[in-house]
Parts: sequence; structure tokens; C-alpha cells
Amino acid sequence: MRKSKEIYLDYASGTEPNPSAIHELGVGEKKKLEVARECIARVFRARASEIIFTSGGTESNNLAILGMPRGHVVTTNIEHASVLEAAKQRGKVTFVPVEKNGIVDPRKIRDALRGDTVLVSVMYANNEIGTIQPIREIAKEIRHWNKNHSKKIYFHTDAVQAVNYLPINVEKLGVDLMSLNAAKIYGPKGVGALYVRQGTPLHPIMFGGNQEGKLRPGTENVAGAEALAEALEETERIKEREIKRLTKLRDYFLHQLARFDFVVNGDLEARLPNNVNVSVTKIPSDLLVIELSARGIMVSGKSACKSGDEKASHVLRAIRGRVAESEGSLRFSLGRGTTKKDIERTVQVLAQIFAKLEKWYH
Amino acid sequence: MRKSKEIYLDYASGTEPNPSAIHELGVGEKKKLEVARECIARVFRARASEIIFTSGGTESNNLAILGMPRGHVVTTNIEHASVLEAAKQRGKVTFVPVEKNGIVDPRKIRDALRGDTVLVSVMYANNEIGTIQPIREIAKEIRHWNKNHSKKIYFHTDAVQAVNYLPINVEKLGVDLMSLNAAKIYGPKGVGALYVRQGTPLHPIMFGGNQEGKLRPGTENVAGAEALAEALEETERIKEREIKRLTKLRDYFLHQLARFDFVVNGDLEARLPNNVNVSVTKIPSDLLVIELSARGIMVSGKSACKSGDEKASHVLRAIRGRVAESEGSLRFSLGRGTTKKDIERTVQVLAQIFAKLEKWYH
Repeated sequence: MRKSKEIYLDYASGTEPNPSAIHELGVGEKKKLEVARECIARVFRARASEIIFTSGGTESNNLAILGMPRGHVVTTNIEHASVLEAAKQRGKVTFVPVEKNGIVDPRKIRDALRGDTVLVSVMYANNEIGTIQPIREIAKEIRHWNKNHSKKIYFHTDAVQAVNYLPINVEKLGVDLMSLNAAKIYGPKGVGALYVRQGTPLHPIMFGGNQEGKLRPGTENVAGAEALAEALEETERIKEREIKRLTKLRDYFLHQLARFDFVVNGDLEARLPNNVNVSVTKIPSDLLVIELSARGIMVSGKSACKSGDEKASHVLRAIRGRVAESEGSLRFSLGRGTTKKDIERTVQVLAQIFAKLEKWYH
Repeated sequence: MRKSKEIYLDYASGTEPNPSAIHELGVGEKKKLEVARECIARVFRARASEIIFTSGGTESNNLAILGMPRGHVVTTNIEHASVLEAAKQRGKVTFVPVEKNGIVDPRKIRDALRGDTVLVSVMYANNEIGTIQPIREIAKEIRHWNKNHSKKIYFHTDAVQAVNYLPINVEKLGVDLMSLNAAKIYGPKGVGALYVRQGTPLHPIMFGGNQEGKLRPGTENVAGAEALAEALEETERIKEREIKRLTKLRDYFLHQLARFDFVVNGDLEARLPNNVNVSVTKIPSDLLVIELSARGIMVSGKSACKSGDEKASHVLRAIRGRVAESEGSLRFSLGRGTTKKDIERTVQVLAQIFAKLEKWYH
């Protein structure tokens, strides 16, 4: 907020001060923005100039993929829709299939590299089944290939789901581009960031301003950037503790779920500590989501059928090959507020729902 | 915020509920989003399905221009950079020059229309000099042309600066696309909207989700959308009163400025009630902005020289033809908080600054 003695005659720049303005209030906003940028850079072990603020994970992924020069792209078949669809827009793309455990083999990524490949994009952790991809190993394969071919293929990772629980030092990961979303780390919606390693030949996908290193035009969302930085710092601060707590809680949950007729999807080791994803065959997953919701328990579900439908899971199809039309999945994703009592209650309610529904579906 | 009795196991969708989720909390978020959308539609006299939320005015303009099918675009030479630059990206574009008063002649727009034209984009009011474009007359010219040629050229207006003070009934304006930005109407940064008339063949420019009528992917910024709707409603509520108050204040300001060696830029009649833009020749405008800022007065300035520099004014060049290297402009833009006392103090401070600086620059 502004000091009352000041006379603000720059409403056309923004009814609140705009960080592009050169007057005192604009400079103050700019400073806040740069402090937020430096904070994120510190966590990523990057330079401040390598952090680009965006409107969220979807924009970050679109910028990383559509903003790269012409050429072939390599990605996997379980990426977030924003990576899959942006990659399709480019035309030349190879979707490397993941293994049955939901993890991609780095050698298969290597084998997909071509002379005209410009970018590899592999998500750090999957949003549906929580499997963690071997980002360092993939980076190593790409480095080798680059060395052997005297070329430079760049490497992007969508770290939106990973940031809460995995190390995000961009040097150690060996990535050139990394996407981040505030709304997945207890920050506000509508804010994200893209790490862009210095020297990466990225071009903007929107036009009309020199903001964000000329990569993302538009008046900067200063409050959003500050909130993102704060959320990221807090995430780092409690990361180790939350990993331990949630791993225990998740394993307890998995143990309790053994009494149901579920198949757990995705690798159990290389997996986010907060993710439980199970297949359900007899009862439609949407119905289970709604029955759980009616009892105060909020989870997410996908069906396996109908490609093109947002509620259908390309991930489930990717890890199974063939999936029954009737098969769906339930995702329970835990977080800071989740307690053992929540898990116990969820298992209890699931039992009630199955007891009620099983007579209709069998 | 969530009720404490609920068990939230959907953190991977968003650490706060996501409006795409089908559980109770997701549905609640979706409802809030749709209420905001309906509110904006009501003000625009549009259908709710015709309102697309974006991350701001720059994205709205980019979507309106880059999202239209291949073909020629007609615009003016004083548009916002996001329109100018997006139009340039399309390749086939005619920049119709405005007249010396900063207003475009609708017949010159008509004369620029071609068989392959798909879109006309003319801003409703200019951000630098506040001149108001004859949107209805341009719409009429386009309708005539369409009728005579059995074609359909679409019409976009960037209404970002206009919304505070001009009528925004899309039917009466006759536009197919209209951009809006929350940060210019006392709402938050990072939120905007695009009105897209039903039937307009717009395509998304980012990919990976079916949100916003399949035109803008990514988790919706619900709080932002609500804040935008609220800001727009308030703007409408006090519009008439503010127009009267600010017109008086601005004219008083212009009267007071007569004692200085200023040239007022842009038409004095077809002009936003909150805009005062003057040319300064002897003293660099940046220096004046900083001197004013040091005395607690926040204004905006542009220089005429160096194209490509963000601080240089393409608008000033457009309305003058030839501008001296040394010429710059000062923009005083008034708003809800502006009082007569502010104006008096500003005039007084300007006199002090000129007295101090004029010995150095003459």
C-alpha cells in the first residue's frame, strides 16, 4: 500500500504501482519482484536472471516446449497434458513409452535422440501415479549424446508435482528448463515460474513487452511472485520432515488398503511420498469420488476409457497396455494437513461405500 | 477455506481445491468461477460462455490476435505493444496510421480491408494519450464490408484502458473480441479476461487442458476471477460519477498547465477523463519523472527517440510524423484517489522543478 502523502498520478500504468514504472513506487515494486526472483534462484541454485515468472505450470510447460527452436522433441507418454499437447503442436515429436512401473528407461530416451532433436522433456514426478523419473540419469544420457555428436540438445523437466518432496538443485539435476507452479506448493493459483538456464535459445510465445528477460510480456504479478517465493522457501524448510511423515502415513494407508480389491498403480519405491493411486474395476471411479465426497472425503479419480475425455487416464493406459473399459483409478494425494486419523477414517468410509455398492456392481 | 471436518486427499490437484475436481470442494470452486464469469458477462451484455479468463491484458491481446485463423490483420500504429507485436508475428498486417489528434479514421480502416483479412484490432482508448477510438463506426464499416463481400472479418478491441470510463456493452460496440485487465480497474495483477463472441473461430495459443471453453488451459485462478468481477462491477457502479469528477479535475489541471511550455498530445474531446499527456522538449522526460517522484508525485514519461527502447513512444511518433530527438512526454493519469489538492500540489511542484532545471536546459 502507498503512503498517504504521496500523489499517485500513474493510474493508467496500473491502479496499484507497476514494477516497470521508474518513479519511486514503481522501483519499490520492481525491488519486491527481484527479491522474490532471487529467493527462488537460491532454492534452485540458479541465477536470478534464470527465473521467469509465468501464470502457472501450464504456461511454464508451454513456454518451455513451444518456445524452443524448430526441431524434434523427445518426451514420454505419461507427461502432463500441457507437455503432451504442446509437443504435438510442434509436429516432430517422439513419445517414449514408460515401463509398466510408470518409469521411463533413460536408455530409451537416449535411443530416441536424433540429429534434429532440440529438446527432451521428461516430468520429474507424475501427477497421477506419483512415480519419480530418473532425471539425473536422463541428463547424463543427453550430455553423453551431446558430447559424442558435438551438438546441444536441451533438457526440460516439469517439476510441478516434484517440488514438495524432491531435491530441486538444477545443477545436480542437470536440467536446462524446469517448470514450477505455486498452486501445488501451498501458494496461490495463477502463478508459476520457469527456470531457463543461461544460454538456452528460448523464445517468447506471447509478445508485447520486455519483462522477464524478454521471455514473458505483461505487467508482472508482484504479489503472486512474492507468494510463490515464500511458498517455495517454506516447502524447502519442511521438506525432510514432510517426506518422513508422509512416507510413513502413505505406507500405513497402503497397508490398510490391502483389504480391498485394489491394484496399486506405479512403482512403490521411486514414488512421491504423498501419492496413493489404485485401480478400481467393478465400480466406476467417478461414482467412488462422489460417494467419498458426500462423506466429506475429497479425492481424485480417472477412468481408463475414452481417449480425448479429460477424465480418462492416458497414464493408466500407458502403464497397462490394455485396460478394461470399466477400469478406473482413484488417487489419494496427501499433504501438510493430512493426519493418521484422516487415513483411518478414509479406510473406514471406503469399506462402507464398498459394502453399499458391491451388491449393485459385481 | 475448507471446513475442518472435511478430509482433503487431493493435494496433487492443488493444495487448495481445484475447480476441475468433481468432489464437493472442486464443485464449490467451479461455482465461484462461474458466478464471476456471469457477473462479467452481465456487465458486457454477453453470454457467460463468451468470457474467457486469462492472466491479464497482454495475454488477452495475444490470444485475440495469435488465436485467429491465418490471414491478414488490420490494426493501427498506436496500439499497445502486445497488439503491435502479436500482429507482427502473424506476418500479414496493415498498420493504419492515426490522424494528428491520435484518432483513427474509420474509412482508412475500411480501405485497408482485403479479401484475405480475418481480423481488425483497434484499441478502445489509448494508454499513453487517452484518445478514444470510434469503435462503433469502425464496427459499422466492417459490417458493411462483410455484407458487400459475403465474408466475415472479425473485430477485436483492446478495452484495457477504456473500461473505467467508457460504455462496454459489446452489442452496442459491435465487437467480436474485447480485452480486459484487472490491474487497470483496481483489481489484482495477473488476471484478465477476453470476451469472445460465440462463433468466433478462435484457437488457443497454449495447450493442455479443456478449461475456459477449450481456449485457455491451466487451473483457473478462481480468486483472481472473483476479484476481477468485483472490480468490474464497482467500476460500473461509480462510472458516471467518476467521469464527471475526473473530467472537471482534468480540465482544471490542463488550465493550470497552460502556464508551462507544454504541448498537449491527443484530441481534447475524444479523450479519457483521467488522461493528461504533454510533450516536453527542453528537459528529458525521465529526469522530470524522477524529480517529481523525489517530491512524492508519481507520473509516467516517455521519450520520442530510439525505437526499440521501451521508454520511447511509438504513439508520440505516430501523431507527429517527425519528432525532435530531445522531445519526450509526461503522462499524468488520474484515478479514484485523485483530489483537487493533488492537482494543485503537482502544478506547484512542477513550477519548482522547472525553476531549478531551466538554468541547465535552455
